[in-house]
Amino acid sequence: MRREAVLELLRQLEANKTTPEKVADRLASLPFEDLGFAKLDHHRSLRSGMPEVVFAAGKTPEQVAAIFVKLAASGVSVLATRASQEHFTAVQETVPTAQHHELARCITLAQNAPPVQGRVTVICAGTSDLPVAEEAAVTAEIFGAEVTRITDVGVAGLQRLLAQLDKLRVADVIVCCAGMEGALPSVVGGLVEAPVIAVPTSVGYGAAFEGVAALLGMLNACSPNITVVNIDNGFGAGYVATLIARGPRSSR
Amino acid sequence: MRREAVLELLRQLEANKTTPEKVADRLASLPFEDLGFAKLDHHRSLRSGMPEVVFAAGKTPEQVAAIFVKLAASGVSVLATRASQEHFTAVQETVPTAQHHELARCITLAQNAPPVQGRVTVICAGTSDLPVAEEAAVTAEIFGAEVTRITDVGVAGLQRLLAQLDKLRVADVIVCCAGMEGALPSVVGGLVEAPVIAVPTSVGYGAAFEGVAALLGMLNACSPNITVVNIDNGFGAGYVATLIARGPRSSR
Amino acid sequence: MRREAVLELLRQLEANKTTPEKVADRLASLPFEDLGFAKLDHHRSLRSGMPEVVFAAGKTPEQVAAIFVKLAASGVSVLATRASQEHFTAVQETVPTAQHHELARCITLAQNAPPVQGRVTVICAGTSDLPVAEEAAVTAEIFGAEVTRITDVGVAGLQRLLAQLDKLRVADVIVCCAGMEGALPSVVGGLVEAPVIAVPTSVGYGAAFEGVAALLGMLNACSPNITVVNIDNGFGAGYVATLIARGPRSSR
Amino acid sequence: MRREAVLELLRQLEANKTTPEKVADRLASLPFEDLGFAKLDHHRSLRSGMPEVVFAAGKTPEQVAAIFVKLAASGVSVLATRASQEHFTAVQETVPTAQHHELARCITLAQNAPPVQGRVTVICAGTSDLPVAEEAAVTAEIFGAEVTRITDVGVAGLQRLLAQLDKLRVADVIVCCAGMEGALPSVVGGLVEAPVIAVPTSVGYGAAFEGVAALLGMLNACSPNITVVNIDNGFGAGYVATLIARGPRSSR
Amino acid sequence: MRREAVLELLRQLEANKTTPEKVADRLASLPFEDLGFAKLDHHRSLRSGMPEVVFAAGKTPEQVAAIFVKLAASGVSVLATRASQEHFTAVQETVPTAQHHELARCITLAQNAPPVQGRVTVICAGTSDLPVAEEAAVTAEIFGAEVTRITDVGVAGLQRLLAQLDKLRVADVIVCCAGMEGALPSVVGGLVEAPVIAVPTSVGYGAAFEGVAALLGMLNACSPNITVVNIDNGFGAGYVATLIARGPRSSR
Amino acid sequence: MRREAVLELLRQLEANKTTPEKVADRLASLPFEDLGFAKLDHHRSLRSGMPEVVFAAGKTPEQVAAIFVKLAASGVSVLATRASQEHFTAVQETVPTAQHHELARCITLAQNAPPVQGRVTVICAGTSDLPVAEEAAVTAEIFGAEVTRITDVGVAGLQRLLAQLDKLRVADVIVCCAGMEGALPSVVGGLVEAPVIAVPTSVGYGAAFEGVAALLGMLNACSPNITVVNIDNGFGAGYVATLIARGPRSSR
Amino acid sequence: MRREAVLELLRQLEANKTTPEKVADRLASLPFEDLGFAKLDHHRSLRSGMPEVVFAAGKTPEQVAAIFVKLAASGVSVLATRASQEHFTAVQETVPTAQHHELARCITLAQNAPPVQGRVTVICAGTSDLPVAEEAAVTAEIFGAEVTRITDVGVAGLQRLLAQLDKLRVADVIVCCAGMEGALPSVVGGLVEAPVIAVPTSVGYGAAFEGVAALLGMLNACSPNITVVNIDNGFGAGYVATLIARGPRSSR
Amino acid sequence: MRREAVLELLRQLEANKTTPEKVADRLASLPFEDLGFAKLDHHRSLRSGMPEVVFAAGKTPEQVAAIFVKLAASGVSVLATRASQEHFTAVQETVPTAQHHELARCITLAQNAPPVQGRVTVICAGTSDLPVAEEAAVTAEIFGAEVTRITDVGVAGLQRLLAQLDKLRVADVIVCCAGMEGALPSVVGGLVEAPVIAVPTSVGYGAAFEGVAALLGMLNACSPNITVVNIDNGFGAGYVATLIARGPRSSR
Repeated sequence: MRREAVLELLRQLEANKTTPEKVADRLASLPFEDLGFAKLDHHRSLRSGMPEVVFAAGKTPEQVAAIFVKLAASGVSVLATRASQEHFTAVQETVPTAQHHELARCITLAQNAPPVQGRVTVICAGTSDLPVAEEAAVTAEIFGAEVTRITDVGVAGLQRLLAQLDKLRVADVIVCCAGMEGALPSVVGGLVEAPVIAVPTSVGYGAAFEGVAALLGMLNACSPNITVVNIDNGFGAGYVATLIARGPRSSR
Repeated sequence: MRREAVLELLRQLEANKTTPEKVADRLASLPFEDLGFAKLDHHRSLRSGMPEVVFAAGKTPEQVAAIFVKLAASGVSVLATRASQEHFTAVQETVPTAQHHELARCITLAQNAPPVQGRVTVICAGTSDLPVAEEAAVTAEIFGAEVTRITDVGVAGLQRLLAQLDKLRVADVIVCCAGMEGALPSVVGGLVEAPVIAVPTSVGYGAAFEGVAALLGMLNACSPNITVVNIDNGFGAGYVATLIARGPRSSR
Repeated sequence: MRREAVLELLRQLEANKTTPEKVADRLASLPFEDLGFAKLDHHRSLRSGMPEVVFAAGKTPEQVAAIFVKLAASGVSVLATRASQEHFTAVQETVPTAQHHELARCITLAQNAPPVQGRVTVICAGTSDLPVAEEAAVTAEIFGAEVTRITDVGVAGLQRLLAQLDKLRVADVIVCCAGMEGALPSVVGGLVEAPVIAVPTSVGYGAAFEGVAALLGMLNACSPNITVVNIDNGFGAGYVATLIARGPRSSR
Repeated sequence: MRREAVLELLRQLEANKTTPEKVADRLASLPFEDLGFAKLDHHRSLRSGMPEVVFAAGKTPEQVAAIFVKLAASGVSVLATRASQEHFTAVQETVPTAQHHELARCITLAQNAPPVQGRVTVICAGTSDLPVAEEAAVTAEIFGAEVTRITDVGVAGLQRLLAQLDKLRVADVIVCCAGMEGALPSVVGGLVEAPVIAVPTSVGYGAAFEGVAALLGMLNACSPNITVVNIDNGFGAGYVATLIARGPRSSR
Repeated sequence: MRREAVLELLRQLEANKTTPEKVADRLASLPFEDLGFAKLDHHRSLRSGMPEVVFAAGKTPEQVAAIFVKLAASGVSVLATRASQEHFTAVQETVPTAQHHELARCITLAQNAPPVQGRVTVICAGTSDLPVAEEAAVTAEIFGAEVTRITDVGVAGLQRLLAQLDKLRVADVIVCCAGMEGALPSVVGGLVEAPVIAVPTSVGYGAAFEGVAALLGMLNACSPNITVVNIDNGFGAGYVATLIARGPRSSR
Repeated sequence: MRREAVLELLRQLEANKTTPEKVADRLASLPFEDLGFAKLDHHRSLRSGMPEVVFAAGKTPEQVAAIFVKLAASGVSVLATRASQEHFTAVQETVPTAQHHELARCITLAQNAPPVQGRVTVICAGTSDLPVAEEAAVTAEIFGAEVTRITDVGVAGLQRLLAQLDKLRVADVIVCCAGMEGALPSVVGGLVEAPVIAVPTSVGYGAAFEGVAALLGMLNACSPNITVVNIDNGFGAGYVATLIARGPRSSR
Repeated sequence: MRREAVLELLRQLEANKTTPEKVADRLASLPFEDLGFAKLDHHRSLRSGMPEVVFAAGKTPEQVAAIFVKLAASGVSVLATRASQEHFTAVQETVPTAQHHELARCITLAQNAPPVQGRVTVICAGTSDLPVAEEAAVTAEIFGAEVTRITDVGVAGLQRLLAQLDKLRVADVIVCCAGMEGALPSVVGGLVEAPVIAVPTSVGYGAAFEGVAALLGMLNACSPNITVVNIDNGFGAGYVATLIARGPRSSR
Repeated sequence: MRREAVLELLRQLEANKTTPEKVADRLASLPFEDLGFAKLDHHRSLRSGMPEVVFAAGKTPEQVAAIFVKLAASGVSVLATRASQEHFTAVQETVPTAQHHELARCITLAQNAPPVQGRVTVICAGTSDLPVAEEAAVTAEIFGAEVTRITDVGVAGLQRLLAQLDKLRVADVIVCCAGMEGALPSVVGGLVEAPVIAVPTSVGYGAAFEGVAALLGMLNACSPNITVVNIDNGFGAGYVATLIARGPRSSR
């Protein structure tokens, strides 16, 4: 469409119905996006087939349901995060194939899913960290990764963690969720070669300060293969994990 | 050696000089590492050919020089971070092929380098962020990535940043260093599809609080492809960038 | 009245019914405000025609309604901020011409409005920032500015922001609201020449710390045309924007 | 030049040496800045005649001197902030007309100055706040404002402050610097109608926390005509003050 | 009772039924309080006639009522702080002469009141600070001071404050409550010679951080006659104000 | 079972059905836990007879009841912390011998209790600290210590504290709970020779910051016999107190 | 002088050389201070005979010496705080009667001292707190109080503190300096009836955070007779102590 | 002496030279310490033979040397912490048998040492933590414990830690020093049954915040056998470790 507008302009020049100067002026005065938008958004087309993400918290059940209806029609997969039971009830009425991931507080609709690419292992320290870990896992799955879950392996019970070593070592990337002192990524990072994405959770009491202790712990982790996302940001960790697991663009 | 000890034990069993029960007992009583160490360290062998890293700060020039001499002999590449001019002078006397990266505060010795794998783009907001950005770049190079540098492209001068769009978009992973408000990763993250590793720097005044403002900014960045490392941690960012750029283990 | 008291005193002196010394003593012993009040409040008269502002939170609906009744009678415009539906219901019953700005949580009553002076553009990063942005916009309108609104233009989607460049560049002053990392003012400040008033919002999760991350980001913004107000302080931003847009006193 | 490149392309189309499709492709593949740069930087031309600003801290005396030589030749005014005596000595040798503002830690070179526009009053609470206040004042002067200075008027000695009321009330904009509890802007903001730019300084002891107490005080100031800049950011305050004092674009 | 026990012991010695050594041993082994308690609590008797204080929050209405019944019988005055309407209803049923100070959240019972001694002026910046200010005022009254109240005199409206100068200057001690930036004590402290007790209140938004901004402001106040109590601690301020207003022990 | 698997392997070697090399390979490839688990968990057997601990908060009454049923059957003692009345009602229905410690928010089931070992004194500053102190006391009791409780002995009433000196001095270890300024451990630590475990509680107002003031006070306590646990962590303090009171392993 | 100007004006009116209206206009247009200044500064005259205070830090030795010379001539006492040996050397050369209080970092010049009024006891916890305590003591002495010093009485050695009980109990006001956990005021406040001014010092390690732990401890002290000043603010504490010790204005 | 005074008083009663009432009055009026001091300090005698501790930082070499001379004569052992080379040189000149522990920054003089009691293992994460760990170890040794040192066993290299399991498991108490994320105590606490005293060190960069990250990590450690001391407080940890290792008072 935009290209059409530019072509039309150029065809008039070709037909000598205008002058190069006038066309140059016209080009310069076009709304920015008419030229730049395409370029700026060029990479968006690369993401074709990628799911659309809806942040449900703060939206009414009806609003979320309406978004699902629209996207269901467009054939794209959908991930709604921070979704309540009410959100799901509303979505389910209109898009019955949508799935509820209660623990993860997510709703997904998988359509025309891309081929599974890369292995993401999601590990968490305690059962209280599960909602965040599940958000990461559900995100990674809908974005096309093969996900392995390891739960309840705190650093104070090393044997349980070490028993999962094989699952950890085959992963292309590990998402590691922990609250309280947030020490799990340090230990896991030392056991594997793959990148580890650490997710501090707001789990803990007193001097845990709603995830601050875990966040600081992870930022100071002594293994060099660790990076960190925001407190409780399971979605972000799951998303970037699939980017890494899919492999570098230059080798695709 | 360790395997030899176990084999010797098993050979005695094969020769019926002992019993299965005694061997089982002996195995169980072996110091942990005699069996487990190899397993635990299994993944270290995968890193064969990887450079050794020396944290020079807090070590005397003589100590750093001695480490270089030893590692030079072993044929492995070496990266010394937070190295002063004094450190380099001492290293150079004994290992003349070592290189000084003054701005990055690094000394490197490249030997039997692995083939270059993956493209890392290191971008920084201001000239004051350069030491951290260069530490990331030198790290990524010695660990085998092809590194592109983009400097001095703050968010307050978008045209300079947008002019570098092509360099950004061919990267497999981007290391993005910024101090002050740390907004660059948010903007860069929205322009590319690749993972972005954000490095807050301690650059800034007053309410920058030695990198805290940038750190918080990056943790709250609205692009989902961003993860964060510790303040001024160029090495960590460069290291994990090469891990990502090298590609997932499952596709190697 | 006060002037009358002083004149009376002076007339007695003129009539030689008292002495200069007694008058001087009397003047010195007058309550401060009898002389100083007028002077101190001199500038208040300059604001004639300016709306009165009512902070509704913490006041009962009846109290707010009573204030509106009184001010409606006095012919001055009124702006109530942080007003609930209950506040509006009570106000509407007695002052039917009052208007409710639900999203902005404001009630306004426009009377004898001054001529529109100056252009204020209010821009916000996400839909969650809208209440704060609307409070700023409604404030600027009732105080006499022509207001343009730009919504949902985060720094992670530059093309949407750049598409609004013209609206930004005609503004006399820009109010820029953002939560999370608060990077929008940095980018906007670099795109325009006008002063930018940054409003951190308490929008965000985890390490957003109820607006602290955005506040620090804005205080450290690298564009020099940015100043900052308190977290969620849409009213303050809108008010000072009209002061700036109205133009300097010396050129009026 | 850029326009020339585009015109050349269009002239080839006019001469039918190419097709509209090829030209459209070529336009789309031009480096971003070739089209967008001009647009993005359009407002920069508005700033013609504005001084260039050099942040001297972290640059060698030679580097700063070299910048002055270059800019002196170009006919533009120059402001160097956070400049030491060493910086000035080096600058003076090559650009003898440069001026040193020792207290403000600034070096200026005034050339082809724009006409003075608008009145800025810079006020500070104590003598320890003077370096920051002077940086603001020198900045405002070189950017073309008429500057009035009021010093040493703390809130604990109201009479000294009130004695300056006339100077305060004629200002188009006030820059108000204070450390410790940072209460001065609150009081000044209540005395004038003009916008007040508050600059917290790092002056103070103990719980002043290097300017944090003053910063928080100013962000919470109860007068609505106050906005705040970063701790010790005299330059930023002086710069935005001139923007405001110059008057709104729409009325120029 | 305790004295009796000691006397009994000494009488046995007087009657030669024991030895000095045994009595000395026995004295040394007496529970500490048998001798020391009286001494340690000596100063408590000085407070005879002083009201008893009950912290009602966290106690049931029945518990508070029971305490009032008991103390009413003993003839001592009572002050209950942080008391709800429910607390008062229960107290009133059994001690009808008790008084409710709703705004102050206090219940008092005045009995055998000491003569009024000293003048305490309680001043607060805004109506939201009133509950804390009233708690201070009610406390000072029940503890025997003559209390003057000044309300709603913020630093942004100096004329209202200055109009109260006479009331301020006759006070023996001033309790000054303020939230937000907490600047009122700085200004008041500069206007009077008497000691000023500053009470930060948790009133404010955003960067007021529940009273932290006001607390820091007050600790850094530039008048030397200011001391500070905990956030919202109206009781503590009122109590210590009466101690000061009553005059030094050495001059009684 | 695991030992059996290893023995089976060794028996095949003994029977010359395999080679030492193959067995060594097989051993190396066994899941970690097959050999290491026993070793790692060796110390767990030392704890035989120790109670199992259930963190009830976040679990449903049914879940907690189910755990009690299972553990009751196994003959081990149970301690549930942070348990509500609802939790207890559910537990009581199925395990009638379970006990509710309402103030401590604990449920206990004592079975085959170990002999009482060591004396733990739990002391707290105010009645608001009681829930935390009781959690510590109940924990210490179920883990086998003789517990003495001292309540309501703040540092502002030394005589009450000193009257308890004998109870303090016979303790093997003291658990000392305090909110507000957290000064009690400093004073107690100076009065006794035994180790003192300080528990900051979240009791307090304003600048108590939910236990932060007490935590900092305790970390900086000037007596060298003090260590600290997390805010409100009565369980942890009670648990480690029993470890200390039981006496060193080397002397058992 | 100012009065003269007003009298002159009134005399002209008396002589009928002007009109009441003109005089009223003239009075209204006089600089604020011409009338108000006297009133505002009225209380300053009450302080006649009070020492002048010089904050030496940040002033050159010559500047401080010059101030002493000037004040010595005027017959007023002088207190210089935060003064170095260099400051004293310079002062001594020109004002030989000045005294150096090295530990307190003060220089004093006593002239026409007012009669000693009131008893101030300055107590500190450790020898590291001595400079702050001495600053308070020297301040209180030069401002006319009788000062008693108690040093090195930490809360971890109660017997040393209790041995000083008599000295504490005769004081009209106590200044209590402590670093680390800052518990001393809580204990002292419980032992005396007089007001206690708590001074947190920056003494301590690690989590003492330069006096923050002590500050928080003191703000949360459980004795109600405690108020707090800024960290290390010995001068402020000493000054307000003399105000209190001098007794209430209403009883003078 | 004090006992003598009391005895003298009682002997006069025995001789009927006074009355029981007079003696009781006299006892009550004795300075507190005359009776209480002995009682309060009773437990100090239990510590007979314990070393005296000198905090050298802030004392001159001569002062420290003088203290050593005096204590050397008294036959008690001495521990000086935070001692420099200069301190040692001065001490050595007068007390040649004193020993320097350079890394630990300690000087010790062992005299009449008590028998070794209990096993303390001091473990640290990195070589930068060694000074703190050594301070703990030297303290524990001089106070009579058998000390085992384990160094350089971070959580990112589990195999090195697990190889030391036997040394960890024979300890009566473990002192565990770590900087950065402070995760080592969590892991160690899960591997042993003994109490673990965690010492956060100020080692680390950026968001380590001088030991705050490690401190928070340790306070939130998930193993219940962990308590924490102040940042870098090796002495405190070593001291309390010996108290625990010596065994409970009740079993001695």
